[in-house]
Amino acid sequence: MSGQTESMAEIAKRAKAAAARMRIVERDVKDAVLVDAAARLCANLSDLTAANAKDLKLAKELGLNAAAIDRLVLDAARVDAMASALLEVAALPDPVGEVTRGWRRPNGLQVERIRIPLGVILIVYESRPNVTSDAASLCLKSGNAVILRGGKESFHSNVAIGEILRAACVERGLPADAIQVVPNTERESIYQLLQLEDEIDLVIPRGGEELIRAVSEKSRIPVLKHYKGVCHVYVDKDADLDMAKRIVVNAKVQRPGVCNAMETLLVDAAAAAKLLPPLVAALREHNVELKGDAAACKIVPTLARAEDADFHREYLELIANIAVVDGVAGAAAHIERYGSDHTEAIVTENWLAARSFIRLIDSSTVAVNASTRFADGGQLGLGAEIGISTTKLHAFGPMGLEELTSQKFVVMGDGQVRQ
Amino acid sequence: MSGQTESMAEIAKRAKAAAARMRIVERDVKDAVLVDAAARLCANLSDLTAANAKDLKLAKELGLNAAAIDRLVLDAARVDAMASALLEVAALPDPVGEVTRGWRRPNGLQVERIRIPLGVILIVYESRPNVTSDAASLCLKSGNAVILRGGKESFHSNVAIGEILRAACVERGLPADAIQVVPNTERESIYQLLQLEDEIDLVIPRGGEELIRAVSEKSRIPVLKHYKGVCHVYVDKDADLDMAKRIVVNAKVQRPGVCNAMETLLVDAAAAAKLLPPLVAALREHNVELKGDAAACKIVPTLARAEDADFHREYLELIANIAVVDGVAGAAAHIERYGSDHTEAIVTENWLAARSFIRLIDSSTVAVNASTRFADGGQLGLGAEIGISTTKLHAFGPMGLEELTSQKFVVMGDGQVRQ
Repeated sequence: MSGQTESMAEIAKRAKAAAARMRIVERDVKDAVLVDAAARLCANLSDLTAANAKDLKLAKELGLNAAAIDRLVLDAARVDAMASALLEVAALPDPVGEVTRGWRRPNGLQVERIRIPLGVILIVYESRPNVTSDAASLCLKSGNAVILRGGKESFHSNVAIGEILRAACVERGLPADAIQVVPNTERESIYQLLQLEDEIDLVIPRGGEELIRAVSEKSRIPVLKHYKGVCHVYVDKDADLDMAKRIVVNAKVQRPGVCNAMETLLVDAAAAAKLLPPLVAALREHNVELKGDAAACKIVPTLARAEDADFHREYLELIANIAVVDGVAGAAAHIERYGSDHTEAIVTENWLAARSFIRLIDSSTVAVNASTRFADGGQLGLGAEIGISTTKLHAFGPMGLEELTSQKFVVMGDGQVRQ
Repeated sequence: MSGQTESMAEIAKRAKAAAARMRIVERDVKDAVLVDAAARLCANLSDLTAANAKDLKLAKELGLNAAAIDRLVLDAARVDAMASALLEVAALPDPVGEVTRGWRRPNGLQVERIRIPLGVILIVYESRPNVTSDAASLCLKSGNAVILRGGKESFHSNVAIGEILRAACVERGLPADAIQVVPNTERESIYQLLQLEDEIDLVIPRGGEELIRAVSEKSRIPVLKHYKGVCHVYVDKDADLDMAKRIVVNAKVQRPGVCNAMETLLVDAAAAAKLLPPLVAALREHNVELKGDAAACKIVPTLARAEDADFHREYLELIANIAVVDGVAGAAAHIERYGSDHTEAIVTENWLAARSFIRLIDSSTVAVNASTRFADGGQLGLGAEIGISTTKLHAFGPMGLEELTSQKFVVMGDGQVRQ
């Protein structure tokens, strides 16, 4: 076993020991750490920007493009934003200890299900250094220990942020190892961590599809992930046209580079001749490049023709597909075939169509007369978001603090034994 | 690709197609299928016993012992019990469609979390043929499709039970492939199924530790499992001695061969001299062989001496360990070191000790003044049990119908778009 392997095992072991202490820490202590950490981030701005300068220097040497370098930058405004996010997490309710259900058994036993932390969470992420404090704060608030493995581009920034958060833990008597930043950038150390299923309870990869696939394939630990968001808006024959235009444009245009943006517009065949031309015009007004299936192209001949593979694509830019479908059932069939179980919306004023869409669509977020862009922990009211899951086990859709917990059974008796 | 590999892929594909239909089936149809299946099991008793006779013949040829053969037997009483279990599942509430939470956002969006089926569930199990109908009924009731892969010893019985359940599905217009019994007993076909993560959503292995480890190691699909149950009863200095005897004896003796039976008795050092002799006597009255740590042997010199490894063992027979610990904190430290996160109980009349035990113990079931034997889906009031999970992701502890579901977000609006 190499020295490095041992050190990953050591990190995991320390995290597990820290988790055993973290799970019984009271809310007031956790909140005090978060408030203190926010103050420390702002007070140590010059240390942070000095560490960040090292990352930026390397990034320029590596020839990263301007957008990639911009994502790395830490300045006063971004550190302020990180600090504010910590204060917001401090203000959220503590999920630990919540009694989610309770009942009495015929023999008098009182049974309760109580939220508990998961234990040790490994976050594997890419460039943005604010993920270090965002993810750490959510894990801490939910009573977990966290191991953070960010991108090599932001390594020095991540380590500097981690040190500040650890100092805040120690100040309030919490173990520093509740928050650990992996102290190297070797790809091999990720793979080593992903084998440590006895110490690490959950892995959350955040980043591009390639990163997420690599983590899923190598991991012996459960992974919460979403590969991509191929989101649909279905405009029903009974849609209000103005509402449909507003929602379709918002879903595609408001921020095209994110997973809950619309990739494909589905239009009900029963009203496509009427609905499609103004919807196309509205999207084109916002410079959206459009590709249609045969039926759509027949109605709007200026549409480019979409290939079958296009309907599987997550464009992440101002391009969208259009398909004509036979009512809600046709929309559901299209989504079943091409969708990614992320988010789909219907625009309709018809009660039965809306009910049917909610029932038929098996995606993590199903919206009626609302933009797909609301599929987000903050927008849905979870208070914060640690990631999005498009698989159904443990969590499905945007994940907040609750999704970083499990539940145990507490059985309270007066001497009951089993017959 | 061999013919067999294709056939496993085909089974999984058919299950996925069936799952898409199952998730929108109403409760009355599912219940009617279960009631009908119960009647069909009883009506087809002779077919079942004929199939079972083939299994029994093979089992004798293979030289299985009497207990193993007894587990395989299907007779009128056991088929009746299987039928009754189906009726009990029919009577349980349908978890699908339950709104677990709902709230309104400042912009007027109504957000709800609604239970949905997981999709396709693979059950890998060992000899008892009743698992075929028990597991299938729970998967069906929760709107999932199931692939059943039982032990080779009960192959013919499992196929015969499966055919009856499938006929009941078809009778009510449900897809037969909602329930599939793998049509061969090759070990390789399990491994092939465990790779099909795009079609199968969850694997539940039920059986011995070896089976469970093999499934976990090979699976690309999430696995819900428990390896073993090393359960503890801690008798506090403030315990009522009679209650302690009753609970300790029940936890060890009432059914020693199951995972929620007590393996180790922990006694508070502050009262061990007083409590230990009568507890030892009570267990010995029930022919329990006892092994003590140094402190326990000092108080009761007739105890055999336990080795450290003994405290990790799941005896599954009338043997138990005894250790003397320093109060609740000492008990928690012992359990943290040797426990399996399954079930632990405290016997005490002290409020603070009980509160502290509930907080400190991180096992899936924590009992106060009640036997560990209540850690069971039926006993806890879940209505049924598909298995027990001793890992925290998705489910922790006994799993009922709820644990065979996920939740989606439904967002109901009036034209809202994101700012």
